[in-house]
Amino acid sequence: MRILKITDEISIKRSVDSGTEEQRAIVKGIIAKVREDGDQALKDFTEKFDGISLANIAVTEEEKWEAYEEIDEEILAIIREAAANIRSFHEKQLRPSWMTTDENGTMLGQKVTPLDSVGLYVPGGTAAYPSSVLMNVLPAKVAGVTRIVITSPPDKKTGKLPPAVLVAAQEAGAEEIYKVGGAQAIAALAYGTETIAPVDKITGPGNIFVALAKREVFGDVDIDMIAGPSEIAIIADDMAKPAEVAADLLSQAEHDVFACSVLVTPSEALAAAVASEVEKQLTELPRREIASQSIENFGAIYVTDTMEEAINTINSLAPEHLEIMTENPLELLGKIKHAGAIFLGRFSPEPVGDYFAGPNHVLPTNGTARFSSPLNVEDFQKKSSIIYYSEKALKENGEKISAFARLEGLEAHARAIDIRLRDEGERT
Amino acid sequence: MRILKITDEISIKRSVDSGTEEQRAIVKGIIAKVREDGDQALKDFTEKFDGISLANIAVTEEEKWEAYEEIDEEILAIIREAAANIRSFHEKQLRPSWMTTDENGTMLGQKVTPLDSVGLYVPGGTAAYPSSVLMNVLPAKVAGVTRIVITSPPDKKTGKLPPAVLVAAQEAGAEEIYKVGGAQAIAALAYGTETIAPVDKITGPGNIFVALAKREVFGDVDIDMIAGPSEIAIIADDMAKPAEVAADLLSQAEHDVFACSVLVTPSEALAAAVASEVEKQLTELPRREIASQSIENFGAIYVTDTMEEAINTINSLAPEHLEIMTENPLELLGKIKHAGAIFLGRFSPEPVGDYFAGPNHVLPTNGTARFSSPLNVEDFQKKSSIIYYSEKALKENGEKISAFARLEGLEAHARAIDIRLRDEGERT
Repeated sequence: MRILKITDEISIKRSVDSGTEEQRAIVKGIIAKVREDGDQALKDFTEKFDGISLANIAVTEEEKWEAYEEIDEEILAIIREAAANIRSFHEKQLRPSWMTTDENGTMLGQKVTPLDSVGLYVPGGTAAYPSSVLMNVLPAKVAGVTRIVITSPPDKKTGKLPPAVLVAAQEAGAEEIYKVGGAQAIAALAYGTETIAPVDKITGPGNIFVALAKREVFGDVDIDMIAGPSEIAIIADDMAKPAEVAADLLSQAEHDVFACSVLVTPSEALAAAVASEVEKQLTELPRREIASQSIENFGAIYVTDTMEEAINTINSLAPEHLEIMTENPLELLGKIKHAGAIFLGRFSPEPVGDYFAGPNHVLPTNGTARFSSPLNVEDFQKKSSIIYYSEKALKENGEKISAFARLEGLEAHARAIDIRLRDEGERT
Repeated sequence: MRILKITDEISIKRSVDSGTEEQRAIVKGIIAKVREDGDQALKDFTEKFDGISLANIAVTEEEKWEAYEEIDEEILAIIREAAANIRSFHEKQLRPSWMTTDENGTMLGQKVTPLDSVGLYVPGGTAAYPSSVLMNVLPAKVAGVTRIVITSPPDKKTGKLPPAVLVAAQEAGAEEIYKVGGAQAIAALAYGTETIAPVDKITGPGNIFVALAKREVFGDVDIDMIAGPSEIAIIADDMAKPAEVAADLLSQAEHDVFACSVLVTPSEALAAAVASEVEKQLTELPRREIASQSIENFGAIYVTDTMEEAINTINSLAPEHLEIMTENPLELLGKIKHAGAIFLGRFSPEPVGDYFAGPNHVLPTNGTARFSSPLNVEDFQKKSSIIYYSEKALKENGEKISAFARLEGLEAHARAIDIRLRDEGERT
C-alpha cells in the first residue's frame, strides 16, 4: 500500500462513473418502452437481461412465507435485532409539525407530512443485501409512508428473490414486492404499469443502468443520491493497532475495485506497520482480487506532520465513512466538519454501522458529505409552510407589504393586499 | 376565465421548460470557458450578454454604501422588518445535534454542521428582487454558513446592481457580491475563478440558461430545486369574496405568461362571480398583457360537486401556493396533504408570504410539493452520524455483526469485527 507525504495540496483519486452516451441511450429506450408497453415491457426486459421468463412480476404471499422457512433462525433473530436498532435510531429523527402565535392573531408554522409512496430498488447479483432493505425501508416506515414498494431482479434459475431480502422487507414493513430489476424497474416505479402503481420517490443503490435511469426520471419523481463507490478514511495515531486499521481498510476495499480506502496519520511508524499488515491480511481474503485492485488504485496512507494537518486532510476529503482511532477520539469530533458517518474508537469499526448499530448506512460519497446527509426520516417527509394573518395583522402590515410588492414592480400583488384594506362598504 | 366541471380525471396543464439541445450546448460551452479562462471569461460574457464592459466584477465597499444612500428610508425600514420576520421564522427550524447513550457504553448520535459556503443567484432584468435575496440568504445565515456569496447581472447602463438588492444583501448578512449573471455566474460559483472562490451549494432562481447551468454543475456542488413557473390554487366556498379571490389569482398570473392560477370550488355562484371579477380587474392591471395570457393558457376555475372533491383535487395538484378561503379554513388544514405554502383565510393573501410574514417564498413547483419542501435552514446544513461502541458493546454484538456480514458475502467486514473480539494476547 502506498505511503505518501502530505504536501501543500492533496488530491485523492476517486472514481466516478457517469455512464457513456451509449448507456444513456439504452436507458432512455428502456424507459420509453416501459411507459408504452407497461407490464409486457417489464417481462420482455426481464427475459432479455435477467434470463428468465416470468408469468407474474409480483412476489406472491406464498413466496413471502417460503422465505421465512428457508432462512436460518439465528439470521432471522439478527435481522430482527438490527431492524429494531435502526428503527429506534430513526425514530429519534422525527420532528413534529409546529406553529407560533402572535398577539395580533398571526399564526405561522410548518406542517410535516410523509410522502404518499416510495419505491426501493434492491440490487441483485451474486449476493443478497438484506441490510440495504432495512436501511431504506425503515426510515420511510418511521416517516409514516404508507405505501412502500420494493423491486429487485429475480434469480435467473429460480425466478425468485433471495429469502434474506424477502424476510428483511417484511420485517421492515414493506409488503409490495416485485421481481423486476434494472432501468425497467426504475421506469415502472416512476411512471407505473398495469401492475405497479407509480411512486413519489425512488431510493436504493444499483448498477450504472439503474443510476442513469434514476437520473433520467428525477424531477418527475424524487430520488435519493446517486451513490459513487464506497469510501473509508481512518485518522489514527500511535495508539491504533495496525492489524485493526488494516482490517478496516480492507473491509472497504473488498466492496469493489473502485472503493477508496485511506489512512491519514501523523505517525510514520503506524503508517509502515499498517502497510505491511494490509499486504499480510490481503493474501487471506476470499475477495482478495477485488480488494488488492482497490487498494492499489484508490488506497493510500498519508503521513502528516501534525494531527491538526491530518484533520484538515480529512475535512478536505469529506469521506463517506470516517474512523477516528486516536487516544481520545472525542477530542477530535468537534474538529471534523465533513463526513457521512463518524466511528469513534477501536471498538467501533465500520461494519458496526453497516449492519447493526442503528444509524443509516446510505451515506454521501465522493466528497458530497460537504453538503449532503445520511439517508434519514426527513428524506421521506416534506414540509408545508402555514400562514395565517388575522384582519388586525393585515391592517398593521398590509401597507408595508404593498410597498414591497410595488418596489418589485408587481402591482397585482399590491392590489391583492389593498382590496382587503378598504372599508367594508367599498368592497364589491 | 374558463370554468370547468371536475369529472373523474383532472389534469391541469402546467408548463415546464427543460431547454433545447441548442441551449444546453451553449451552457456547456460557457461553463467550459469559465473553467478555462476564469475572470476573463466572466468579463467577456458580461460584455457579450449584458452589454457592458466591467473592469472589476466584485461590488466595492463604495457601491455598497451608495446603495444605502439611494434607497428610500421607508423601504429600508420595510426590508429590515421583513428580514427580522424571516430570520425569526427560520430560527425556529434550527435543530441541535443530539446523541443517545446506552448502559453498555454505546453512544449514537447525529451531528449537525452548516455548509462552508453557498452562492445565491439573483436574477436581473426589468425589476430588482430584494425579497429573493432575503429569502435565500437568511436561511443560510441562520444555518450558520460563514461564507455567503451573491451574484447578479449588472445594469447595462450603470454597470451596477440595483440598490434594493445591495441593501437587502447587506441586511441579510451577505457581504461578498459579484456583478456577473447567467450560466457564467453559475460556472464561477461551482468551479471558481481568480476572484470568486467556489462554493458548496448554489441556490436562487434564474432564466433557462441559469437553470440549465445549475443542472449541469449539480453533483460537483449541490443546488436547490430547479423552479418551474409559479402557481396558485385557491380552494373556496360561498363565504369567499369574488373580488379578493380574483385579485389573488391575478397576483399569480402577473408573474409571467406561464404562471398557473386555479380556483377549485363547489360553488357555481362563486365560480361565475370570480370569472367576471377576473375580467374586470384584468383590464386595470399594468401587467395585463402577461396576466391575461397566463389566465387564458394556464388559468382555470374548477367546479366540484362537494368540498371533499375539491380537497382531493388540491391534493392531486400539490400546488406551490394554496389559499384556503372557506368558512373555517382550519378544518381543512388537516386534509391538505401536498402544498408548498398554505395561506389560511381572507386576510392571508399570498403576497403576505411572498414578502413579509417570515416563511420562505422559495417553494416546490409543478407538483413537486408531493415530495419537496420550502427552502429552509436544513437546506444549508448537513448531518453526520456518530457511532461509538464500547469494548463491552462490541463483545455483546460483534458475533451478530460478523454473521450479518458473512450473509452478504463480505468476509473482510466480518474479520474487521473478529480481530477485535480475540483475546488481547492473540493480537498483534
